[in-house]
Amino acid sequence: MPAEATRFDRLSTPALLLDDAKMMRNIERLAARAQKLGVTLRPHLKTAKSVEVARRLNKGMAGAITVSTLAEAEAFHAAGFLDILYAVGIAPQKLARVQALRAKGCDLVVILDNVEQAQAVAQAGVPAMIEIDCDGHRGGRQPDEAALIDIGRILHAQGCLRGVMTHAGESYTVRGKAAHAAFAEQERSATVRAADALRGAGLPCPIVSVGSTPTAHSARDLSGVTELRAGVYMFFDLVMAGIDVCRLEDIALTVLTSVIGHQKDKGWIMIDAGWMAMSRDRGTATQDVDHGYGLVCDADGRILPDLIISGANQEHGILSLRPGAKGALPDLPVGTLLRILPNHACATAAQYDRYTVLSPDGGPLQTWQRFGGW
Amino acid sequence: MPAEATRFDRLSTPALLLDDAKMMRNIERLAARAQKLGVTLRPHLKTAKSVEVARRLNKGMAGAITVSTLAEAEAFHAAGFLDILYAVGIAPQKLARVQALRAKGCDLVVILDNVEQAQAVAQAGVPAMIEIDCDGHRGGRQPDEAALIDIGRILHAQGCLRGVMTHAGESYTVRGKAAHAAFAEQERSATVRAADALRGAGLPCPIVSVGSTPTAHSARDLSGVTELRAGVYMFFDLVMAGIDVCRLEDIALTVLTSVIGHQKDKGWIMIDAGWMAMSRDRGTATQDVDHGYGLVCDADGRILPDLIISGANQEHGILSLRPGAKGALPDLPVGTLLRILPNHACATAAQYDRYTVLSPDGGPLQTWQRFGGW
Repeated sequence: MPAEATRFDRLSTPALLLDDAKMMRNIERLAARAQKLGVTLRPHLKTAKSVEVARRLNKGMAGAITVSTLAEAEAFHAAGFLDILYAVGIAPQKLARVQALRAKGCDLVVILDNVEQAQAVAQAGVPAMIEIDCDGHRGGRQPDEAALIDIGRILHAQGCLRGVMTHAGESYTVRGKAAHAAFAEQERSATVRAADALRGAGLPCPIVSVGSTPTAHSARDLSGVTELRAGVYMFFDLVMAGIDVCRLEDIALTVLTSVIGHQKDKGWIMIDAGWMAMSRDRGTATQDVDHGYGLVCDADGRILPDLIISGANQEHGILSLRPGAKGALPDLPVGTLLRILPNHACATAAQYDRYTVLSPDGGPLQTWQRFGGW
Repeated sequence: MPAEATRFDRLSTPALLLDDAKMMRNIERLAARAQKLGVTLRPHLKTAKSVEVARRLNKGMAGAITVSTLAEAEAFHAAGFLDILYAVGIAPQKLARVQALRAKGCDLVVILDNVEQAQAVAQAGVPAMIEIDCDGHRGGRQPDEAALIDIGRILHAQGCLRGVMTHAGESYTVRGKAAHAAFAEQERSATVRAADALRGAGLPCPIVSVGSTPTAHSARDLSGVTELRAGVYMFFDLVMAGIDVCRLEDIALTVLTSVIGHQKDKGWIMIDAGWMAMSRDRGTATQDVDHGYGLVCDADGRILPDLIISGANQEHGILSLRPGAKGALPDLPVGTLLRILPNHACATAAQYDRYTVLSPDGGPLQTWQRFGGW
């Protein structure tokens, strides 16, 4: 058995493994970009949902962060983080929880894109960013919509206007640096135009915030932007590799699994990682290379060419060679440990309550808790 | 606001709601069928993962159950359940955990389909069922394979052979009672043939276990079968409704969500339930009616015709009318509470750590913990 495999003998499979060294390289890569672009990096912790990961983002210091749930905001505030953007359009019912956190000294800021939200938020005295739609992906106002100024005025009347923000979710659907750079420019241009419109109406707009992992890694110029957000860049995944934002060897997250059987006449190897262990995310299905429910590596993390999870039941995965693959099915006896690269780090990690962390120095495995819920 | 909506005002959305009355009707419906068919019902708790739900299956008594993880086995044993089938092919590395539970008095039985597993299991002295392949869906031996007898002999030599089991996972892919009854007969016939083969070789086969929710609800005759397993029948979901195993109004599980915005020019209503709240399961995508990421109801649970979650980001859902729908988009202001019927109860429930339970008598909401992990 390889050296790594024996390290995993005490783990029950499936288990979520996090390669600390790869993660740190990914963290440093984007931090260097943000510095070069002259913007504050506000990492999104929706992927990691871990205090230990959060502490690694800023050399042990509690910097500015983004979250996707109030549960994340509460957990990171409890761990000492004080500068938090909750980047999902606020439901008015949630303002009491926001106010409770703010009363404890957390500078929790919400986002919104309509007058009804703005009225509720201004009444509650909660600072907010206005969401701008830069690519038709989900919510947000257009930079030239009259509603933008209406919302800005409602917020500003109560001192609640912090700025504008956007996210080019559509950048995930295109491949290559040039295509991502075009979306980065859409993010920049839409938010800067919106900020200018607000300022032109006599309203303040100190923060101009953009970001997604593909655009953050491809933006050429962020003039007028003050802040960059991204989340999955810490771990990366097959979807990001499929659009050339990272290499397969940069992916820091794998699922450890055991071989439990074979259906030899079908060319199948059965493992104990099904969709519960991988998530139902099939993000590579629409990419140039479809990895099924994940790409298979040996226990040391070396890719087994063209071997993928081609089918998944709740707790069973079916490995087979990718259609058209030329090699032979590897001989993987019952009990063999394997590691699976996931399609989508956010969705796969969400299936687990902990990371088993591989130390850079080959030291003992560590356990880091992660949380979910809302 | 409707009466139910005000009941939910203290919940933070998204939240997982469980209608106790609907669940009890679903539980009783299959219990009555099992009684009529003359078999023991061994409910599968992979969907529910809740001690409170488990206790409702058998009038408060701890009956025979099926689980999909050792974490479930440990949790249900701690709650008093002693007769447990772990219905995922055993990885030899997990036998120490199985033995530890058995040493505490839990009659935990494993399943397997190959000689390597049988040798490890026999050596550990753990009772096992042999998995039979009745439909080419995943693991299992054919009833007439010589390996079946080899495996049986290895187990029996150590007194570890409990019987045979199968699961017609392919029954989920066909619609209607006749089609499901055909799969039920495949389950019955394959396991009975396997049991006869073992007995013909002088081996014992006391338990003959079959089941899936579609086949359990459609089997006409289970001669030779002793035990029936099913899981999602307790809650049901859109996938089960789409193959006529239940009606939409039988679905006991919904996700409570809040409207957070509108993109009126696109006919979109934005909600705070994205794929994290619903899971990435798109099980209805290949059915006659595609419900996107879920079918929308008002807060009282009344279906809003043709309104579905047509797109999902991590924490954002996009509601729109189903393609071809004739009605108008309903007027749902920011803050409106809605309930979403899920595609796949197992996958959606897995995203939550608790159920908010609607009591049959309209009494206060209860909270039942659910667990995940392995």
